[in-house]
Amino acid sequence: MTEKFNALYAQSGGVTAVINASACGVIETARQHSDKIGKVYAARNGIIGALTEDLIDTSLESDADIHALRHTPAGAFGSCRHKLGSLEKNRSQYERLVEVFSAHNIRYFFYNGGGDSQDTAHKVSLISKELGYPITCIGIPKTVDNDLPFTDNSPGFGSVAKYVAVSIREAGMDVASMALTSTKVFVMEVMGRHAGWIAAAGGLAAEKEGDAPHIILFPEIPLNTEHFLKRVQDCVKKYESCSIVVSEGVKNAEGNFISEQGLVDAFGHKQLGGAAPVIAKLIKDNLGYKYHWALADYLQRAARHIASKTDVEQAYAVGKAAVEMALAGKNAVMPIIVREKAETYRWSIGEAPLEKIANVEVKMPREYITEDGFGITSACREYLSPLIQGEDYPPYAHGLPVYVKLKNKAVEKKLSKTFEIT
Amino acid sequence: MTEKFNALYAQSGGVTAVINASACGVIETARQHSDKIGKVYAARNGIIGALTEDLIDTSLESDADIHALRHTPAGAFGSCRHKLGSLEKNRSQYERLVEVFSAHNIRYFFYNGGGDSQDTAHKVSLISKELGYPITCIGIPKTVDNDLPFTDNSPGFGSVAKYVAVSIREAGMDVASMALTSTKVFVMEVMGRHAGWIAAAGGLAAEKEGDAPHIILFPEIPLNTEHFLKRVQDCVKKYESCSIVVSEGVKNAEGNFISEQGLVDAFGHKQLGGAAPVIAKLIKDNLGYKYHWALADYLQRAARHIASKTDVEQAYAVGKAAVEMALAGKNAVMPIIVREKAETYRWSIGEAPLEKIANVEVKMPREYITEDGFGITSACREYLSPLIQGEDYPPYAHGLPVYVKLKNKAVEKKLSKTFEIT
Repeated sequence: MTEKFNALYAQSGGVTAVINASACGVIETARQHSDKIGKVYAARNGIIGALTEDLIDTSLESDADIHALRHTPAGAFGSCRHKLGSLEKNRSQYERLVEVFSAHNIRYFFYNGGGDSQDTAHKVSLISKELGYPITCIGIPKTVDNDLPFTDNSPGFGSVAKYVAVSIREAGMDVASMALTSTKVFVMEVMGRHAGWIAAAGGLAAEKEGDAPHIILFPEIPLNTEHFLKRVQDCVKKYESCSIVVSEGVKNAEGNFISEQGLVDAFGHKQLGGAAPVIAKLIKDNLGYKYHWALADYLQRAARHIASKTDVEQAYAVGKAAVEMALAGKNAVMPIIVREKAETYRWSIGEAPLEKIANVEVKMPREYITEDGFGITSACREYLSPLIQGEDYPPYAHGLPVYVKLKNKAVEKKLSKTFEIT
Repeated sequence: MTEKFNALYAQSGGVTAVINASACGVIETARQHSDKIGKVYAARNGIIGALTEDLIDTSLESDADIHALRHTPAGAFGSCRHKLGSLEKNRSQYERLVEVFSAHNIRYFFYNGGGDSQDTAHKVSLISKELGYPITCIGIPKTVDNDLPFTDNSPGFGSVAKYVAVSIREAGMDVASMALTSTKVFVMEVMGRHAGWIAAAGGLAAEKEGDAPHIILFPEIPLNTEHFLKRVQDCVKKYESCSIVVSEGVKNAEGNFISEQGLVDAFGHKQLGGAAPVIAKLIKDNLGYKYHWALADYLQRAARHIASKTDVEQAYAVGKAAVEMALAGKNAVMPIIVREKAETYRWSIGEAPLEKIANVEVKMPREYITEDGFGITSACREYLSPLIQGEDYPPYAHGLPVYVKLKNKAVEKKLSKTFEIT
């Protein structure tokens, strides 16, 4: 009988509609390999739970509850944005991790997050070599920003993309219905501080001439007020209304976020009011059109009710693959989504080394944005469209989605020392 | 053979996720009675189309397209907020309507809207008596504000209610996942300038102790800053995070909308920035918590993708009933939803006289709000819960809901005179 080791799973960074589907993939797959993996612990509130020995025993959760993670948004075990420093400068943190791993017989570490988190995962993977504790570390990709390298797309993005496309289609129809005598301009602000992937996804809703959105404002394209206002005016003249998707990361010609300009409160303090109201006001002041605006914020990344089936399947698959890779003796890798060269969209799971993923941000290619800077090209559409395919509705009771809340029972602490997060 | 007369259907006021389901009910039912009703015309952009003789011939639309209206949000024929004045003072408008009705052999008028619109419908119903033109006028209820009298609830409200409850449940889980190290407070602004029905619906998401939303701010309850901040702080201490639903109509102790206070742009102009950022900033300034906020705006009333099945069925039923009432020789009435006295929720269609509906706004009863003013009571929950029951998903293609766009072919004009809308 070979010795069994426990696994530790942690969620990191901003949560998504499908990060729990990855957790589900990890835990269900580990349960299928109970001959090799003992318990799956989860770190409460991400890496902080690992450092403070605040571990959750997922073995106390029923199969049904673990399965329900697949359709439950947000982070079931809590997440955080804590970054580990370099091994050289912050050796004590890594030594602490080894203490915790060792005390709980943990030899597998699965870290589910974006670029920063994969950097942490990479550093943890170096523990074996640097500190002599045998740990198998596998990263699991997650980010609504879709900016991870190697992988064709990032789990979490497809569902935000679907939410944004569905929402602007619906709101655009609303505005168009009323445009003759009421609101002519609608502005919807979406996430994406550094890259326009999410804003671009809104463009999928415009399938026919005149469909919303009529204009997309990307962080990659500095706002040219004159061109923009001309385009809004042309659009209202032609279609009676103008629906706009604006990324929170849109900058002016001077390179400053437009969301940070202009608004102050009664005391003269600068107000972070969002990009949408600034754009709406710009239009009102210059063209006089009545406007409405929306700011989706967390609604977009939490919207499990309208998740992309493709996204859910991929999120589950990378969780599953992470466990399989660990069992196959791999280390310091991250499962990735590989788009196969085929007539119709097909994907499979590949892998990439954590070392090369850490801190690399993939930008949206310029050729995905139309030359005028206000829309997406057919190449962009071809890339994005498969990622929002399919619906994967959660179960409902009393008219509301039934999302699982796990017991999240703490594992008994074994270390006498506590650890202060700084 | 009895002579057949045509019908005119018009949409009025703010559109909803299900007003087209009422249109579907009207047109499908009229088609089933083609022995009595000739063509169903639709007024383009509401009553304005009726006055300007801009009519749409719905008989040119296929059965499949008309059926697709049932799952299509917004106003398929266009809507407007134009109010007709009194018959005494604006006689020329009513005479014009008679000219248009007469020219197109229209003897049935179906007017689909809220309180103001039912006032217009009532005035049109007086045409027979005042101007001697035989018209049968039936109102069809619609409003997300849920403020129509007689009817148990207004078609359109249930779907917004469902959207708001689902959204705050999802976003609340997101915030709770990250609260230890990141955002602790989430504020979601919803519609309802005069009544808190929509904000109250958010409360349905809180089924268990600690569930979001933790606080609801109603237009009915003047904001007591001190009590509110205390509650937010208690909530964060107890649950780590605090999710808040705020109605756009919340007022301060002086009776002013909080959305209109404080914010000015770089030029000192007052900025209508919404209630959510004001509340979020209030918390940040006094308690220091990191916050996020969302403003759902049109997304909430257009969200057909998450419509309430009950709402869709009721919206269809009032459209159908309107035609049946007209054929039964009724006039100047509006079909209403009647909640039957039963263990489980059951509803049927009743009727109410337009004369008594016009310009009556139903307020939310004080006993639906908890004594502290921050939540809903069990009586409120009992009333609201059935209205969001059931899902009624639209069909999807390419990952997006397939909503119908009608041909909306204009009926040839028969009048030489045009009419100026003032």
